[in-house]
Amino acid sequence: MNPPFYHGLRVGMLGGGQLGRMLIQAAVDYNLHIRVLDPAADAPCRPYAHAFVQGDLMDYDTVMRFGQDCDLLTIEIEHVHAGALAALQAAGKIVRPDPSIIRLIQDKREQKLFFRQYGFPSAPFRLTETAEDVEAFAEALPLVQKLARAGYDGRGVQILRSRADLSRAFDAPGLLEDYVPFAKELAVIASRNPQGETVVYPVVEMQFHPEHNLVEYLFAPADIPPHTAHEAQQLARRVLHDLNYTGTMAVELFLTEEGGLLINELAPRPHNSGHHTIRACYTSQYENHLRTILGLAPGDPAQHTPAAMVNLLGAPGHSGPARYAGIEEALRMPGVYPHLYGKSETRPFRKMGHVTLIDPDPARLHAKAAQVKALIQVISA
Amino acid sequence: MNPPFYHGLRVGMLGGGQLGRMLIQAAVDYNLHIRVLDPAADAPCRPYAHAFVQGDLMDYDTVMRFGQDCDLLTIEIEHVHAGALAALQAAGKIVRPDPSIIRLIQDKREQKLFFRQYGFPSAPFRLTETAEDVEAFAEALPLVQKLARAGYDGRGVQILRSRADLSRAFDAPGLLEDYVPFAKELAVIASRNPQGETVVYPVVEMQFHPEHNLVEYLFAPADIPPHTAHEAQQLARRVLHDLNYTGTMAVELFLTEEGGLLINELAPRPHNSGHHTIRACYTSQYENHLRTILGLAPGDPAQHTPAAMVNLLGAPGHSGPARYAGIEEALRMPGVYPHLYGKSETRPFRKMGHVTLIDPDPARLHAKAAQVKALIQVISA
Repeated sequence: MNPPFYHGLRVGMLGGGQLGRMLIQAAVDYNLHIRVLDPAADAPCRPYAHAFVQGDLMDYDTVMRFGQDCDLLTIEIEHVHAGALAALQAAGKIVRPDPSIIRLIQDKREQKLFFRQYGFPSAPFRLTETAEDVEAFAEALPLVQKLARAGYDGRGVQILRSRADLSRAFDAPGLLEDYVPFAKELAVIASRNPQGETVVYPVVEMQFHPEHNLVEYLFAPADIPPHTAHEAQQLARRVLHDLNYTGTMAVELFLTEEGGLLINELAPRPHNSGHHTIRACYTSQYENHLRTILGLAPGDPAQHTPAAMVNLLGAPGHSGPARYAGIEEALRMPGVYPHLYGKSETRPFRKMGHVTLIDPDPARLHAKAAQVKALIQVISA
Repeated sequence: MNPPFYHGLRVGMLGGGQLGRMLIQAAVDYNLHIRVLDPAADAPCRPYAHAFVQGDLMDYDTVMRFGQDCDLLTIEIEHVHAGALAALQAAGKIVRPDPSIIRLIQDKREQKLFFRQYGFPSAPFRLTETAEDVEAFAEALPLVQKLARAGYDGRGVQILRSRADLSRAFDAPGLLEDYVPFAKELAVIASRNPQGETVVYPVVEMQFHPEHNLVEYLFAPADIPPHTAHEAQQLARRVLHDLNYTGTMAVELFLTEEGGLLINELAPRPHNSGHHTIRACYTSQYENHLRTILGLAPGDPAQHTPAAMVNLLGAPGHSGPARYAGIEEALRMPGVYPHLYGKSETRPFRKMGHVTLIDPDPARLHAKAAQVKALIQVISA
């Protein structure tokens, strides 16, 4: 790496949201100079970035111009112009993770084809181009329809349970997955450097909001048998290896009712299923993203204390300047740590922050997570 | 607190060095807007502050002007114009810790008088005004002479061992302490909020550079008998209580050869003997400084893993752009975490950063600290 990282290496980050904000917190210790490109004038990263450029992540020229002033480029969101990153790479810039992997993961069909080609367990699927195509598979209902592109936080994904649902099938290229009833949703974070050195975090368990497909609770480590945890970690390790991946990645999985594992999807960046690694692990997913993209040895991912994460989502019916009602009271409970994203305006179900809870006793941890969830309400002032 | 902290409360910080830099890292999670006053154009805080004012911390008008734009004022260095802070307080600003305590601690004579008045164990002393006064106490040699003001990092402190040393006695108001041979130098960090809620960190042990009176190694927890640790923590708790203190404070102590404890001095702010709390404790001294000055409950100070800290001081004979030779290799060792202060120029013995080491095994921890110390050299590029 030239200049060496400690000389204020200019790291360009595509995306300036909360994940980037936590990356910058970690970057301070390494004296990295983080430059941010984000479309929002009030992006959570802006106050802490060495430079902030407001612009469209999907615009080729914007990304190209932004990249000129950076020594190394990375992402905190995968909805970026991967072609521009590839062109910057061709022009000699270091881009991590590799633009070809970002492009693969952007397309849920390519992801599935990768799983199939490399023998990773994943729900059976078929590709479709139009809503009409979908009808041809009515025999296989229930099915999960996923758009090839632009799905994020549950957008572009729907369950088609019966023939009646076919009328609302997406009319765009995508895929149809077998609907696999699952016992749990799991995630494994792993980080790998260009030399191939890989660390894998303990498996976590996510509980989603029943309607809004956003993680509501996370528990780490997951309450699953040790052999299942080991298998999930091995799958993650193999994904990073087979992609020749550099950086931190999240591998989301389903634990089926029969106890098997299926990979759901990948995220080529730090992920909200790894927020707790800041408080509960020796090295956070953010720090390890930086260490690995810099070509340094990844740090110890071991978890020292059981943890939970509660997302602070904007309360339904509230829009405007945010108030975190109940937060002072929640902070009176031992092991409760807030992470506010600095978004001044709340909206229903907007991710406004999260709370990490740590407690040596898993039963108490679960109880505290429910208490914190009930206590803190993100409402308009 | 008005506005509530999560609405971007404007916290004015006097001093913008490495302690402030770590305070800002913690402040991100609470969405505090930190405004910094520091005399150096390249202060370590500058890239991360919501506002940066270059100016003299000891200048009344500068501090007054700076304070106008803040909701709450705090310090990361005690060499500030305490009178200006008192005037800001009188004008309705919240200042934490209280300016009267900052003033007391700025003056080593007042500190000693406080210890005496409140019955805290501390080395016997006498006040002196001039070098001539010092000679009158020649019978009591060896003695430690301390200037009343402006001592920092060992400046303004000297040991007078024999009559020959009297010729170099400081000719300014100060004090003469009995020279107490000590077995160890210890420190206790504690944080207290205005409601009186107090948390006390495990006792740490500092090893100083033989010539430069700068901490070279720190080990946490200290290798001392449990009853001594308890006594040190109780002393710290009582100091904060008796001062009616708000914020994080460091209490430095000597463990005498007989096993007794003497308070050496106080620091009314986060302290370099608490750097390791970021990596090794559930809540860092920085986060607890913020929580307590905001009137929030302090977080759990318990340490989850034994830790060491190695200061990265500029190597003798090197001045200019800094190079951290050996750092990549040091990061290959498990449990090694760098904290670089972003100072571009090194000078002999300048504090350029530190490394925190964590390891469940104390013997291995000591060995690793020595290895890291030998590996990383801060030299000019």
